[in-house]
Amino acid sequence: MSGGSEVDKLIDLMAKLPGLGPVSARRAVLTLIRKKTRLMRPLAKAMAEVEATVRECAICGNITVHTYCDICRNPKRNQSLVCVVESVADLWAMERSGAFKGRYFVLGGVLSALDGVTPESLRVPLLVSQVVEGDVSEVILALNATIDGQTTAHYIAEQLAGDQVRLTSLAQGVPIGGELNYLDDGTITTALNARKAF
Amino acid sequence: MSGGSEVDKLIDLMAKLPGLGPVSARRAVLTLIRKKTRLMRPLAKAMAEVEATVRECAICGNITVHTYCDICRNPKRNQSLVCVVESVADLWAMERSGAFKGRYFVLGGVLSALDGVTPESLRVPLLVSQVVEGDVSEVILALNATIDGQTTAHYIAEQLAGDQVRLTSLAQGVPIGGELNYLDDGTITTALNARKAF
Repeated sequence: MSGGSEVDKLIDLMAKLPGLGPVSARRAVLTLIRKKTRLMRPLAKAMAEVEATVRECAICGNITVHTYCDICRNPKRNQSLVCVVESVADLWAMERSGAFKGRYFVLGGVLSALDGVTPESLRVPLLVSQVVEGDVSEVILALNATIDGQTTAHYIAEQLAGDQVRLTSLAQGVPIGGELNYLDDGTITTALNARKAF
Repeated sequence: MSGGSEVDKLIDLMAKLPGLGPVSARRAVLTLIRKKTRLMRPLAKAMAEVEATVRECAICGNITVHTYCDICRNPKRNQSLVCVVESVADLWAMERSGAFKGRYFVLGGVLSALDGVTPESLRVPLLVSQVVEGDVSEVILALNATIDGQTTAHYIAEQLAGDQVRLTSLAQGVPIGGELNYLDDGTITTALNARKAF
């Protein structure tokens, strides 16, 4: 149908990206071909460059082009404050808020019996050894408020139970701008039970 | 914020693709980094390959890796039947229907006073010379049913008025599966005026 198997192959690969299906992948590839020098060439180059240089930070699992990521190497960040997140996307979300000045630990997923995700595949042992051996004063469990996320938080809490480290988790309640009318029962129940003096 | 300027650059470039914004570009890049060997490497390679090999068919303007595209080189297609389309995307849409066995002519846009698109930038002279010099029996104007599309169709019809070539356009009316209740007034008026014996 298209201009040769090369184009079809590119469409198939583009369609594997999240947010793109076969139709939008076709549209994206036609745009790329129309903007060959301005978009396709730099994009192919940037992709090859990232593929060759980006790796996991040896401490926290964030993506970086060095051995250690910008956050772990930053002397202005409190390295004794560790925020445990599920993914790099969650780390970026925390960073966008600008509210956290410690460092991170990226689990790389959450425990899931259905998907066969075990504690070992989640780098939990590495987190435990960092807490035991390092100078960590507080571990903040910033895992998603899903069943799997909370199961993982409880598992990590168990693993760190013997240590003197302070364990905290993000507060749960009504999100900023949230309207009670549109919130689920669980959130309202949690917010009511955790109510505080006004 | 991310794992270095390389990653930020890749996100910026990805966000320029149609269908992807800054948020979905971030998500796509994280997926690429997670699937480095399975997705990012082949995608960068496919993109570089398409960038280096794909060009416009010298006859019709379709994309191809040869001098002439598969359709123009196909002896089974009726080369005297020319379907004029706005873009390669429209050509692909026509091909998906499987209803057309002639060849195409891709204009590369439609006339637009607002966007400064003139007949010269649309390859209309090339179409006229193909019709005048070649063995073309019919030109089908398969342009979009928009103001600009129809203006362009009328302009092309004027340019070809002196020739003996048969000029046709796609039928307009109720689309297959269309419900009258959801159709615009213009479509209903057109379909009523063009009604035929049942």
